[in-house]
Amino acid sequence: MTAPRLDVVGIGNAIVDIIGRCDDAFLARYDAPKGHMRLVDTATLMGLYGAMGPGIEISGGSAANTIAGIASLGGSCGFIGKTGDDEFGRIFSHDIRAQGVAFTNTPIAGAATSRSLILVTPDGERTMNTFLGVSTELAATDLDAALIGRANVVYLEGYLFDGAGATAAFEKAATLARAGGGRVALSLSDSFCVDRHRDALLGFMRAHVDILFANESEIIALYQTADFAAAAQRAAGDVALAALTRGAQGSVILHKGQTITVPVHKVDKVVDTTGAGDLYAGGFLFGLARGLALDTCGQLGGLAAAEVISHLGARPESSLAKLAAAAQLG
Amino acid sequence: MTAPRLDVVGIGNAIVDIIGRCDDAFLARYDAPKGHMRLVDTATLMGLYGAMGPGIEISGGSAANTIAGIASLGGSCGFIGKTGDDEFGRIFSHDIRAQGVAFTNTPIAGAATSRSLILVTPDGERTMNTFLGVSTELAATDLDAALIGRANVVYLEGYLFDGAGATAAFEKAATLARAGGGRVALSLSDSFCVDRHRDALLGFMRAHVDILFANESEIIALYQTADFAAAAQRAAGDVALAALTRGAQGSVILHKGQTITVPVHKVDKVVDTTGAGDLYAGGFLFGLARGLALDTCGQLGGLAAAEVISHLGARPESSLAKLAAAAQLG
Repeated sequence: MTAPRLDVVGIGNAIVDIIGRCDDAFLARYDAPKGHMRLVDTATLMGLYGAMGPGIEISGGSAANTIAGIASLGGSCGFIGKTGDDEFGRIFSHDIRAQGVAFTNTPIAGAATSRSLILVTPDGERTMNTFLGVSTELAATDLDAALIGRANVVYLEGYLFDGAGATAAFEKAATLARAGGGRVALSLSDSFCVDRHRDALLGFMRAHVDILFANESEIIALYQTADFAAAAQRAAGDVALAALTRGAQGSVILHKGQTITVPVHKVDKVVDTTGAGDLYAGGFLFGLARGLALDTCGQLGGLAAAEVISHLGARPESSLAKLAAAAQLG
Repeated sequence: MTAPRLDVVGIGNAIVDIIGRCDDAFLARYDAPKGHMRLVDTATLMGLYGAMGPGIEISGGSAANTIAGIASLGGSCGFIGKTGDDEFGRIFSHDIRAQGVAFTNTPIAGAATSRSLILVTPDGERTMNTFLGVSTELAATDLDAALIGRANVVYLEGYLFDGAGATAAFEKAATLARAGGGRVALSLSDSFCVDRHRDALLGFMRAHVDILFANESEIIALYQTADFAAAAQRAAGDVALAALTRGAQGSVILHKGQTITVPVHKVDKVVDTTGAGDLYAGGFLFGLARGLALDTCGQLGGLAAAEVISHLGARPESSLAKLAAAAQLG
């Protein structure tokens, strides 16, 4: 019996988030760049943890959040990422599997699972301080070729370019995806990350990527232009399909010369923006997997993002499938 | 220099909650008594964890939640409870200290920190499956006499009676509190817990307790009468001050022949009732510490409970001091 096809297999950092609240002065005091992700060493992580307020631990990781969102919508998914053989690794593994996602990586004995201290300011903006631990060591040998071969879409997070073996792993993942008949999607993750790896990202995009996800600051950082429309057109020249998020201004989808604008999905109160982009990608990819029109894909992305920013944490708290049905999407 | 007095020192189980959602059928399938706390062994815990959906990890523990609430209101607090030298122990210790609470217990090497799998049904009701781990081993020798001696109120949770050494520890704590000029408060915790330890709880109450907290089902279980009013009068005969919660019907305070009824603090949507009683006690004790009228104490309890049931988890997500100021309480 052949194993069934999967809508999406994600490859990314396997992270548990530790989420707490703080004010802007706290971010400044600890040199945390507001709204961004920075990499920290163990000493910085522990110092920041000791200084911050009470936390909540929730599984995270950018691509993993996207995959959890697709699964919550009813999609079939797999995830590839490295955890340590510790409590945080067990939390991550449980949560992704409990969402119905195939996760086959064996925990690495003696290694520390990656974690991110996420500081949420009163405006709902999140600032991430990530200790990448073992997840950044993802190498080509960690890829489950059978899992990737079953994917209709392989989804990669740009953050992984922070790891030394990432480029080789991404090349291999793209090749495996293609060989299995799947498409390749990439998220740019963070504008600082784009600055660190611009050439590698662009090279990989042009060689392998069918579907690109980015927000406004990331796409501007990638093409080093201050003009969003110009950057978007550049993206449309580099990939077949680009879905670009603009926060409260909704999203813009570029495909075959078309530019589709999707209004934002309104929420009563933005509690924590962590995972907004991840869940947008999740909703969008679920829509694509179901063969829906691109503007509907964008609306599904907006719906999933709206759910996740209405509470603490980057994983859906409610069934996205139910929310989508209620909104007559999908 | 003499160490300053503390408003409240809590003694209870040091627990990290793992909170997930399920439906009523899931509770029935796993024999989890809806709305109650049951003790489970490691095998049951792991079986249930494997079967449940994605979780969120948040520090919990009944008395610890109460203390976190008082600290969030601006009260000065300490907490006594036992953790293991593991990740969950570090999470618990961080969170209680980050709330500004003095927590002096040394983690026990090689011991497992207690955890509770909390299943939240769509109606917001919580059902707890607690693996008590090391916290239940609290004995008289674990009490920080200096910390208790500084307390104006020592607050004890009835759940601790599930541990073998609890009675001796509670007697000692009450004696130390009294010697330091403090009062003794007790929460009955859970009606099943009351059934397990009725005589011990009643004996301890009559000998030592000044302030009693209980909900309707607990006070009914304690006095084995189906009539709430009758049970409340019995309580008023056993302790100087009783604050009894009745869910959506608010609370009833009994003191010196008076019966004060406090209406419920309305919330838009009950997300998760975990910690409602704990936070009521926290708000109430903070009001007492500030010398406020008993009905205001009850309103502060209601306000703190309303905050905690409006999101997942039993610790306040917002500053209760700010909420109290906005409501012109305290």
